[in-house]
This record gives sequence, C-alpha cells and structure tokens, in this order.
Amino acid sequence: VESVGEGVTEVAPGDYVILNWRAVCGDCRACRRGQPQYCFSTHNATQKMTLTDGTELSPALGIGAFCDKTLVAAGQCTKVDPAASPAAAGLLGCGVMAGIGAVLNTAEVTRGQSVAVFGCGGVGDAAIAGARLAGASTIIGVDIDDRKLEWAKGFGATHVCNSKETDPVEFIRSVTGGFGADVCIEAIGHPEVYKQAFEARDLAGTVVLVGVPNPEMTLELPYIEVFGRGGSLKSSWYGDCLPSRDFPMLIDLYLQGRLDLDGFVSETIGLDGVEEAFHKMERGEVLRSVVVF
Amino acid sequence: VESVGEGVTEVAPGDYVILNWRAVCGDCRACRRGQPQYCFSTHNATQKMTLTDGTELSPALGIGAFCDKTLVAAGQCTKVDPAASPAAAGLLGCGVMAGIGAVLNTAEVTRGQSVAVFGCGGVGDAAIAGARLAGASTIIGVDIDDRKLEWAKGFGATHVCNSKETDPVEFIRSVTGGFGADVCIEAIGHPEVYKQAFEARDLAGTVVLVGVPNPEMTLELPYIEVFGRGGSLKSSWYGDCLPSRDFPMLIDLYLQGRLDLDGFVSETIGLDGVEEAFHKMERGEVLRSVVVF
Repeated sequence: VESVGEGVTEVAPGDYVILNWRAVCGDCRACRRGQPQYCFSTHNATQKMTLTDGTELSPALGIGAFCDKTLVAAGQCTKVDPAASPAAAGLLGCGVMAGIGAVLNTAEVTRGQSVAVFGCGGVGDAAIAGARLAGASTIIGVDIDDRKLEWAKGFGATHVCNSKETDPVEFIRSVTGGFGADVCIEAIGHPEVYKQAFEARDLAGTVVLVGVPNPEMTLELPYIEVFGRGGSLKSSWYGDCLPSRDFPMLIDLYLQGRLDLDGFVSETIGLDGVEEAFHKMERGEVLRSVVVF
Repeated sequence: VESVGEGVTEVAPGDYVILNWRAVCGDCRACRRGQPQYCFSTHNATQKMTLTDGTELSPALGIGAFCDKTLVAAGQCTKVDPAASPAAAGLLGCGVMAGIGAVLNTAEVTRGQSVAVFGCGGVGDAAIAGARLAGASTIIGVDIDDRKLEWAKGFGATHVCNSKETDPVEFIRSVTGGFGADVCIEAIGHPEVYKQAFEARDLAGTVVLVGVPNPEMTLELPYIEVFGRGGSLKSSWYGDCLPSRDFPMLIDLYLQGRLDLDGFVSETIGLDGVEEAFHKMERGEVLRSVVVF
C-alpha cells in the first residue's frame, strides 16, 4: 500500500496486501443476513483511474491487475503476512481462491470424503489442493491432458483419470467402492462435463460448478435423476470466499508448508510477456504465469 | 401394535404408532456417516404377508396401507402421543411429511425467509404449513386451481398466484422486493415448473424438488444461469425425514394447535371408497381422503 484515502482504517501505507475483485458492501440483503460471501453489490474504487491526459481507465475485474500501480476500494485489499512470496500470494486474488473455496466453502468438504475434480488447470488443481487441506481421503483428478494430470498428482490427487481414454464416471465409481464421489467439482464450465460430474456422484452427493459457462450453453439433465440421485447442485462464486477471513488463513497455511501456492507459479514474467503467456495458457502449458514488477 | 416379533424393543403391543415406508438400516454408508435421513438401504418386513392360501402379497410402499392389519419392520413404526386423531396422524406417513420436511429438513427454512411453493396439493400445502412453522415471513402459494390456492391460504400462505392467469416469476418478484424468494419448492415434478422455481428465486437462493418426475422428462436450464444465479438446487427424499425424530415432534406441535394436520383430511372413507377417492384426487377435489377402519 502506497497511500490510503480519507476514512480508510483497515490498511495503512506500507502494508503488504493481496488484492481481490470484490469488496463486500456490508449493506445488501446478503450482507445484512450474515452471508457477505454472497454480497450482491460488491464495491470497486469510486474514483476512476486515468491516464495523465485524463482518459478514464476500465480496470480489469475492477482491480487493474496489468499495471504496476492501481487504485482500489479499501475492501479490495487484505493485509497478509509479508513473509509470503508475492508471486504465490497474489494468486489468491482470483482463480486459486475460487478452486480452494469451491471445496472448502461451497462443498464444505471434510475429512474422509471422496472428491472428484473435473478439469485440472489452475482452478481445478486449487480445488485438489483444497480437498487435501480438508482431509479428503480419495481425491480424483479428471482431465484430457496428461500433463495436467501430473500437476494434479503434485497437488494431492490420489487418483487421476484421462477422460479421453477412460470413462470418468466408471473410473470414479471404481475407486469409490462402486458408489461415486461424495463431491464432484466442475471446473470447466461445459454442460457435458457437468453431466459427468452429476453422474459420477454418490447418492445424496454434491456437485459444485465453479467453471464459468458460455452464455449460449444449455444444461440438459434427466429430470427423474435430479430427483432420484438426491443431494445438491451448487454454484460457487469466487469460491464463496471472504478475503478478510480466507486470505490470511491460507497465507499462514502456505507459510507452514501445508498449501503449495508456489506450485501454481509456472513462470514469472515481465509485463511484456503477457501476450505470450495467454497463448501458453490456451495451449495448456502453464498453470499460472505471474507478472512480477 | 397388536404383536411384535422376537428382538423388537422399540415398540410393544398396545402402542399407538404411525407407519412409514422407510426403516433406516443403520448400516449403509449414509447411516454410518451420521446421515440416516439419506439411508440407501431401507428395510421392509423380512417376513412376507400372505393370503390364507399362502399367496404372497406385495404391500404398497412396503407397508400395505390398504388393509386393516399389516406386517412391517420394527423401524417402520414410530410411537406417538395417542391423543392425536388417527386420520390426521397417519398423514405423516407419506406426503404431508414429504412437504413439511422439504421446507424444514431439506431447505432448512428459518424465520424471516421468503418461500414460494409451486403446487398446492397435499405435498405443497404441507410445505406451506412447514414454512409457517419455521417462521417464514413471506409464503407464496402457486397453482393453476383457485380452490387449491384457497387451501394454501388456510395453511399459511401470505400470497397466492394462479399461474394460469399471472406469471408466477413476476408475481413472486413483486412480493419480495423485486428479488425473488429465498427458497422455491417444486412440489409438482414437471420441468417447466422447475424452471419457474429456478427463475423465481433470489440470487444464491435454494430450489427444492420434492415432486416426483416422470422418467421420460428432461430438465433444460441455461447453463450460465446455473452458475450466475448461484445457490443450490436440492432434492428432498420423503422430506429427508427421520420418523423417529420428526413424527413425535410434529404430533406434539399438532396437539398444541401449531400444525394443522386436520386440514389435510378432506374426508374419511371406508375401504370401499378408495377407487372413487383416487378419482377425486385426480380431479383435484380433495387434499387427502383417509381410509378409516
């Protein structure tokens, strides 16, 4: 933090913080009923950033992550232990928090459960790391890319399944006593993957959708199975996180060596490497390319 | 209870009991993890009932409700206060428990919430009664039959909507500050009704399916909305009830005048009136016709 505006008391110049893209308002109907993780009216900075000529800027995700200095609402930054590597800590700002939170906050996975994660990129591998943190006993990574499945093992998957070669529903049943997983995480955002997650789940189990679909997609499910398989189908918004609660805790676990945030840092790059980094992401070559200033 | 088998200790001859169609096993993976309401291996009586000539009988729902004497597993009967009217108490054995439980056990409705119930027959009106019991502040009954909407008001609906005349999604928004209901109960089992419940729900709200669909139905939802509207889509099996926990409690509330079970008894009939009672049900003329011996 370089400087703070009038009335800001949570952070002070010199603080080491993680930025997040949703500062809860404290005043909407979700916040007022004690569920600020669902805040329906999150804040960004009220003052617009500008170029020196006065041109207003539209910060990506309300933060403006692709610049070396930015202006955010006070609730968009959370103070954490400065011993954490900036490249690793910054990842909690979006995808990694979404994955960990999908498992810990949305699915509320606990010790001994079985968890299957569909899609082993940055979000999915974070879900796997979250499942390991929660004490899940069987953690299954599903992807069509063997490289990603290797990464999944590194974050704690006890089993992996290449769904291009092996039916993931059959595979997940085979490693869960024939029943299916207690929790299935859909980290892709594709209706066919959702159907696999829906079917690979034990009776009364939970599906969590954390992948973001395209607007034109339709989800089709056999209605009798929606009833018959029971349980619940949930969506996870940004891992239903509360940065003020979750960031310091996860950074502490990281510093204790219990959460491998460094594993998500495939490479550190300069600002001029951003375009190529997007192409690497599209080709599935990296989990996260982190811009370091 | 007329007589009990060897080793039966929960009930004794002379007890006044309510029958239910699922005796939890105590031994399946759901029971062992402390969620017997989901029991995946419910018991019926092991000994078959027979005619005097030895012909084996198949009791409806494992109980055989259409006879004046039956044989059930010990866990299929629950002792309750004998002051309760048999016609009213018996209704907890199936549909009325399903509706109350969908609201209390599955949706976990609490004071001050808004609840919309789609379908105001026996199950839906029980959901309305459950919402009133839980302290919901806004309770909306939706049906295409004005007679059923009148019944819904009697059980505690604060608002009713004839969805043949008025768009229920718009109506529910209009009586919930423009947002939608916290909880929507689908008590019909039809995909189009489910879509209404899905859309009439506030952000991060809950849909509970308690109506039983036909096997050929398909549920189609815009996938981006499954993500974007958040919350959870649940199914309720028999109101996720535990008869041993729920029946005595609900009977006590009934005897205190806080749960109107009598209101569900549209008529009492003899066994010879069963065929005509089914026709009345199909025509929507009754909530429940109760056979009294």
